[in-house]
Amino acid sequence: MKRVLVTGASGFVGRHSLPLLIERGYEVHAVARGAIPAAAELRWHACDLLDDRAVGALLAEVRPSHLLHLAWYAVPGSFWSAPENLDWAAATLRLVRGFAAHGGRRLAAAGSCAEYDWSHARLAEATTPCTPRSLYGTAKNAVRACIEQVAARLGLSWAWGRLFFLYGPHEASGRLVSDVIAGLLAGRRVAVSEGTQRRDFLHVEDVARALVALLDGAFEGPLNVASGTVVPVRDIVARIGALTGRAELIDYGARPLPAGDPVELVGAVDRLTALGFRPRYDLEAGLAETVAWWRDRERA
Amino acid sequence: MKRVLVTGASGFVGRHSLPLLIERGYEVHAVARGAIPAAAELRWHACDLLDDRAVGALLAEVRPSHLLHLAWYAVPGSFWSAPENLDWAAATLRLVRGFAAHGGRRLAAAGSCAEYDWSHARLAEATTPCTPRSLYGTAKNAVRACIEQVAARLGLSWAWGRLFFLYGPHEASGRLVSDVIAGLLAGRRVAVSEGTQRRDFLHVEDVARALVALLDGAFEGPLNVASGTVVPVRDIVARIGALTGRAELIDYGARPLPAGDPVELVGAVDRLTALGFRPRYDLEAGLAETVAWWRDRERA
Repeated sequence: MKRVLVTGASGFVGRHSLPLLIERGYEVHAVARGAIPAAAELRWHACDLLDDRAVGALLAEVRPSHLLHLAWYAVPGSFWSAPENLDWAAATLRLVRGFAAHGGRRLAAAGSCAEYDWSHARLAEATTPCTPRSLYGTAKNAVRACIEQVAARLGLSWAWGRLFFLYGPHEASGRLVSDVIAGLLAGRRVAVSEGTQRRDFLHVEDVARALVALLDGAFEGPLNVASGTVVPVRDIVARIGALTGRAELIDYGARPLPAGDPVELVGAVDRLTALGFRPRYDLEAGLAETVAWWRDRERA
Repeated sequence: MKRVLVTGASGFVGRHSLPLLIERGYEVHAVARGAIPAAAELRWHACDLLDDRAVGALLAEVRPSHLLHLAWYAVPGSFWSAPENLDWAAATLRLVRGFAAHGGRRLAAAGSCAEYDWSHARLAEATTPCTPRSLYGTAKNAVRACIEQVAARLGLSWAWGRLFFLYGPHEASGRLVSDVIAGLLAGRRVAVSEGTQRRDFLHVEDVARALVALLDGAFEGPLNVASGTVVPVRDIVARIGALTGRAELIDYGARPLPAGDPVELVGAVDRLTALGFRPRYDLEAGLAETVAWWRDRERA
């Protein structure tokens, strides 16, 4: 019996993961802090993951064989340097300990491209140094390093999916793609940077598929969850302008590029590709699907 | 008013720190998990640092301006790879958050030379990579990296004293110097390695003095607490043989060198020296004092 506990289950990646886990035959236990949707195929548990005792009780009750750990502090903008990163690092270390202590065997967790040294453009698991510049990247990397050292001792098999840049349905506001789409669909002027920075974007459904495949496989260690290709941010914005028919509302250069932002970040995908993973969405199809989702939502 | 909370206060370094803090005019709040000695100049608090709620209550009650954080999992031998390192990493992150939230301003904590890449012999704060090979070193380094990133945001000034090899009164059994002294004084044969590895040893009172000076100063960041000189482990054992008059009981080479143990480890002490710190004990005086302490203890 494969019984998975999913943290961050109501989040951006989490909600896209749940149907994929059910499809693969898991008994799915989803953790949420607050309101709990009713669902026949899912068991929802209300639990504050920062509360050790509540987490201990949950693990003792569920005794998951698998853990898909996606929860973290994720408020757009502020997550980079918020002290809450310490809470989530601590909570993750304890969650992993408790998971193993209650019979857990296989762990997949969401890491980040922010764990890498961003003075490199192409970020590869085996060769790029992990010397993060942000608190967020530092906290994720700290947790990963500890799990790497302790996993065998705890009898855990583990994979660590380093997420790059995501977009897609259900993205929170305050992020690039969601804000540009919502703004243009509402007929508002949208201020963006010149958009010269090149980034590696992957549709959230592909991200969720990769993480679920990782969980369900036997790969050990860190692995980039990325497209392996870059696109200038300006091209993404322009495509959204075209898809919404409101390109004239975009003010390029009205926002400065963030200070110290690297020119290019792309994930090496050799490891991911070797596992047989191929994205279902290219950027064109993915953005079209995302704009369509926002249109539907506006109508609803 | 300088009010310090000392964790690990009944431990090897902690107990030597307490009188030094009192001397410097601190109101000293010492934390212990279990039995609490009566002391007029100290306030002892029974608290399990792995229990978040207990720690929160303690911080709210004491509201320390200073934190000297020494507590960690320290069972000789097993501390290198014990899963408890995760608990202490998590507990430290939360302690630091709580300390800041309750008005704390200055933090000094015990790091370790195990944070460094031991393929280097001379370990220097600014230049030696922190790529630890042990779980213990990884967990300490993970906490240090997080504190480094978050300190300013929390309004904390911080120093991180990386401890090297310690010896002195009150050392736990199961460690080199304590076991050799206790064995020889008891007239037992003592099995040691060839002792060709060279290490940087510092008397525990000097370590405590350095950490208390760090706490009471304004230095920011990591700093080696070391002697800056190496000695072959064999010389230490031989000196204990001479001091106890039982050199003939020592069996050199009866134990293998630990696999992968580096030939030499020495701490760069430029930073420590620049702060005006000089050890009071050289190895000769320090070992003589330590042997004398064990003799007194035997007589008692």
